[in-house]
Amino acid sequence: MSQPSGFEVWILSIGNELLIGKTINTNLTLLGKKLTHLGYNVRRGLILSDIIEDIAWGFTLALNSTAKVIISTGGLGPTFDDKTVEGLAKALGKKLIIDNNVLSKLKEKYKRINLPLTPVREKMAKIPEGSIALDNPVGMAPGIYIKTHGKHIFVLPGVPREMKAIFEKHIENILKEIGPKIYFLEKMFTSIGVPESEIAPFTDKLVREHPTVYIKSHPLGRETRGPIIKFHITASSSSKTDGQRILNTIYNELKKRLIQLGAKIEE
Amino acid sequence: MSQPSGFEVWILSIGNELLIGKTINTNLTLLGKKLTHLGYNVRRGLILSDIIEDIAWGFTLALNSTAKVIISTGGLGPTFDDKTVEGLAKALGKKLIIDNNVLSKLKEKYKRINLPLTPVREKMAKIPEGSIALDNPVGMAPGIYIKTHGKHIFVLPGVPREMKAIFEKHIENILKEIGPKIYFLEKMFTSIGVPESEIAPFTDKLVREHPTVYIKSHPLGRETRGPIIKFHITASSSSKTDGQRILNTIYNELKKRLIQLGAKIEE
Repeated sequence: MSQPSGFEVWILSIGNELLIGKTINTNLTLLGKKLTHLGYNVRRGLILSDIIEDIAWGFTLALNSTAKVIISTGGLGPTFDDKTVEGLAKALGKKLIIDNNVLSKLKEKYKRINLPLTPVREKMAKIPEGSIALDNPVGMAPGIYIKTHGKHIFVLPGVPREMKAIFEKHIENILKEIGPKIYFLEKMFTSIGVPESEIAPFTDKLVREHPTVYIKSHPLGRETRGPIIKFHITASSSSKTDGQRILNTIYNELKKRLIQLGAKIEE
Repeated sequence: MSQPSGFEVWILSIGNELLIGKTINTNLTLLGKKLTHLGYNVRRGLILSDIIEDIAWGFTLALNSTAKVIISTGGLGPTFDDKTVEGLAKALGKKLIIDNNVLSKLKEKYKRINLPLTPVREKMAKIPEGSIALDNPVGMAPGIYIKTHGKHIFVLPGVPREMKAIFEKHIENILKEIGPKIYFLEKMFTSIGVPESEIAPFTDKLVREHPTVYIKSHPLGRETRGPIIKFHITASSSSKTDGQRILNTIYNELKKRLIQLGAKIEE
């Protein structure tokens, strides 16, 4: 897909539960969708364990990449295996400091549920030097934002509801501000009766001829009427009208050829 | 988690649809679960685009890691963006060759649905020199197995049904054969009424004292009776009886402390 260059994103998903198959990584899916629609090119995902060295390894790799934006989820809570902040600090070579504003917010939040601010709770107020805490409107651990190494790094909790809330409250606007002025458009449809390998050369030709367009075909098995393929056409353009026009052109050409080959099309 | 060393796994998930948030990565979840239960330590996941260089980058990284097993999913079909085999060959510095056995099987499979063996279909018979094709019992593209660089590399299609079929038919037994002689045991339960940060120091202490055990707590929000936490205790042991005994000890200690703190436990 000919995405705009200079707007690459790496997503780091932190947590043993993802690697041992206990939790499905819906956070990466949600972030991937949101970032793609903002015109970014989500280039890499890393799934990392709760070991500090693994987390630091992931951030170091991302810091040395062509990514403009790095987003992590997971590992921000009060338990012994919440080590994302330490891993990030290690990768950045920065010290962790207590953010007094976060500390008093945590104190207040815990006071509301009649609990004191113990050391494990205080831990959530530690952020790398030079970073900004992003208030968590639906939970305890704040997100973190740091601009360094020419990159924008965002650190989010792993609980999906908290991840989404911080992303929408603080991060979405920053990403719009620093992102490409581009529209992302897409169209999906289903073809029945033609095998993927039959249409593949034509799809290939279309994508080669139109570098701003990407066509992905997903074979979904067979039914009595023959093989089912789900098509997903995406286009990015600095003009919404142009993007829509090229998307429609591709859709019509692809549909026409599939019908010629004997397919039935379902929108 | 103190998993046996020398049995690390890296999982490579290949496909733009994962990065743009169109598809949820259930393949990694399924493989992660199966491998963990076989006693392996799933250490890293990489989510890669359909670009050859990105695929080769991922395999190169895994080849230079401490992984004993590398498993990839996706990018094995007949379309222009199915580039996993090329990416792997590039990382290995090996040539692609036509596997004549696969070729005749493909010919036969397509003949059954009255289709000829076109060049895009023939592409699925190309495998890196020195590797073994793994027959796909429910689809066209075979899986691939290659032993090289001191590692076992398995390449699987991205269609979940095909991925699972090839894994179960060919790979599971190889992994048992070359894997650790170890049992993986787990126990889950839910605690209501105690915040995660309240039990965290005790969980931490338990894990430090019992290096073969791992306790993960997942906060699930609040209800009127207070915060809900789902606990997942895992233990690995070369003896099933020993593993079960330690799992039960940990479970009982954790439950006792939670009840002391005012929690209600649900199995």
